[in-house]
Amino acid sequence: MWENGLTKLLKIKYPIIQAPMAGGVTSSELVAGVSNTGGLGMIGAGYMSPDQMQNQIREIRQLTDKPIGVNLFLPSNYTANEEKLHKAKALLQSVKEKFNIEKEPVLPAHEQDIKTFNEQLNIIIEEKVPICSFTFGLPSPEVVVKMREFGIIMIGTATTVQEALMNEKAGMNAVVVQGSEAGGHRGTFHTEEKHSLIGLMSLIPQVADRINLPLIAAGGIMDGRGIMAAKCLGAVGVQMGTAFLVCEESGANTLHKEAIINASEEEVILTKAFSGKMARGLNNTFIEEMSRYEDVFPEYPLQNELTKEIRKASAANGTTEYMSLWSGQSPRIAKKLTVRELMNNIVMDVEKTRGSL
Amino acid sequence: MWENGLTKLLKIKYPIIQAPMAGGVTSSELVAGVSNTGGLGMIGAGYMSPDQMQNQIREIRQLTDKPIGVNLFLPSNYTANEEKLHKAKALLQSVKEKFNIEKEPVLPAHEQDIKTFNEQLNIIIEEKVPICSFTFGLPSPEVVVKMREFGIIMIGTATTVQEALMNEKAGMNAVVVQGSEAGGHRGTFHTEEKHSLIGLMSLIPQVADRINLPLIAAGGIMDGRGIMAAKCLGAVGVQMGTAFLVCEESGANTLHKEAIINASEEEVILTKAFSGKMARGLNNTFIEEMSRYEDVFPEYPLQNELTKEIRKASAANGTTEYMSLWSGQSPRIAKKLTVRELMNNIVMDVEKTRGSL
Repeated sequence: MWENGLTKLLKIKYPIIQAPMAGGVTSSELVAGVSNTGGLGMIGAGYMSPDQMQNQIREIRQLTDKPIGVNLFLPSNYTANEEKLHKAKALLQSVKEKFNIEKEPVLPAHEQDIKTFNEQLNIIIEEKVPICSFTFGLPSPEVVVKMREFGIIMIGTATTVQEALMNEKAGMNAVVVQGSEAGGHRGTFHTEEKHSLIGLMSLIPQVADRINLPLIAAGGIMDGRGIMAAKCLGAVGVQMGTAFLVCEESGANTLHKEAIINASEEEVILTKAFSGKMARGLNNTFIEEMSRYEDVFPEYPLQNELTKEIRKASAANGTTEYMSLWSGQSPRIAKKLTVRELMNNIVMDVEKTRGSL
Repeated sequence: MWENGLTKLLKIKYPIIQAPMAGGVTSSELVAGVSNTGGLGMIGAGYMSPDQMQNQIREIRQLTDKPIGVNLFLPSNYTANEEKLHKAKALLQSVKEKFNIEKEPVLPAHEQDIKTFNEQLNIIIEEKVPICSFTFGLPSPEVVVKMREFGIIMIGTATTVQEALMNEKAGMNAVVVQGSEAGGHRGTFHTEEKHSLIGLMSLIPQVADRINLPLIAAGGIMDGRGIMAAKCLGAVGVQMGTAFLVCEESGANTLHKEAIINASEEEVILTKAFSGKMARGLNNTFIEEMSRYEDVFPEYPLQNELTKEIRKASAANGTTEYMSLWSGQSPRIAKKLTVRELMNNIVMDVEKTRGSL
């Protein structure tokens, strides 16, 4: 009943992928927990150094012998606009003072990002990680050929039909279709951000009508109802972020988990204030204060570096008001469970939903 | 298999409601066609005079003896801000000159709107229309008592969990849950517009967990896949707009129908430029030109009156660039069919989707 093209491709029991949330959410316990209960656990390696990533892969291997995956961010090409940087720094100064932050941000450099990305790819090959997914773009033809040579399954991300077609053409083995409901950063890499906010009810069937890759639905899916709905629309699997983020094993800050569990869907909004790239999370003071300056911020990942210490200090001070509280649009369904409890609930829920049709 | 609480309540065969699109889309042929093929045809009476509405009800009664419904707009309370009106008129002047429009807009008056609404209610009672739905708010307790006395089924509209709870409390018999995917005006009446754009994948289950009314899913649903997905999420029926708008029997302008059929999902955006209230439709020159002035426009329905002649003139001149081309987020699935063909396709599609699970 659960077996399909995707479960066979990924060698997993249930077509349920734990979203590779970056920034420390994907603890080894979370990733291994998901893989051990029949889903696919994934490391969100977007902000990791090659060493950190390698260490975590090895740590997880001690906890599970099931398939796991790693997600990488394609290095974005950006130019440091001095005027924008100056303005953004000035805007953030009062917040920095509030938390007594003196550390100056170290701006990223594109060449270094590319070097890191290539090293990450080599570790994936070296560590024989069976599955690698990509966000914020597509790997080059050379990378695709190399990964394929080593038998690594590649999963891309798309937020529009056009981006899904580009994934297919680039040689991805499957594609995550990210709906507007999704928490965290938009994976948009080709379409203009404001034209890429398509709800899954619309996005999945329109993509399914045009591409032949296995589709993995992402955005707002929290339980068996969402999984069955995604299947009806043409997906063969789902990628769930928020539902796993609030799990006991997740590495997310407790304040973040509790904020989601207590939130309503109206509090989940879009902002570029934390990173320069559009992302979905719970509204707070920082987002409100910065909402007038969305066009002022330097582009991703520059703004991300500028706000890094602020987010850290907010958490350290026990307040959620200056943290990035990424969440999808279904916080009311979020429950504090262990991964095993969540997976069990989902499987039972799918049976129940199927029976009700 | 199709029978459920909603089909019994509305006395229809299939839980498929044709969205009561205002502005001439819901021709008598469309409404009767939907009811005659087992769905619920609805008159979008939002912009109609009581007489127009009464005439259409009588005309449709010649074409079908099945249940039909009427949708009314709750009169919005607004104040004519002279400065905003002046600015908006100035902004629109060049477009008016382009089309040689000399007619001065007649601004609506709230007292008149209330009078019209009450007359519409009386006609619904007089003509024994079995079903009445409401948009942009909820009827007063007095109206609810009166409608109930005459056995009229009342359907409200909600875009958030909070609004759905308000519908339940107000005594609605069912509620349309409008996702962010939906075309045309947002039905939002309580939540701030920018916090009310929830995708159906998130919205339906969160509402279903909290209210006991039959839920009707609206937004991006075009075929049996969407209907089955909505059922999985907790809805018992669907309301479809765009799919019926492009049907041969619909009264929408041919230019509008063709624009949708040729559009991609990326072209469907949100704008307040036509009416002062947020609505979803295809991007065009007018929306682009006005996008910088979203905060300048007077509120609904004032801006709607200011742009009325422009939209008409655009259509009359054979260009879509200044028309309001309302559409949901799934234009790629839109097909030019007769109502009967569409309904047949949906029923077959539902069987197919069910069989694939």
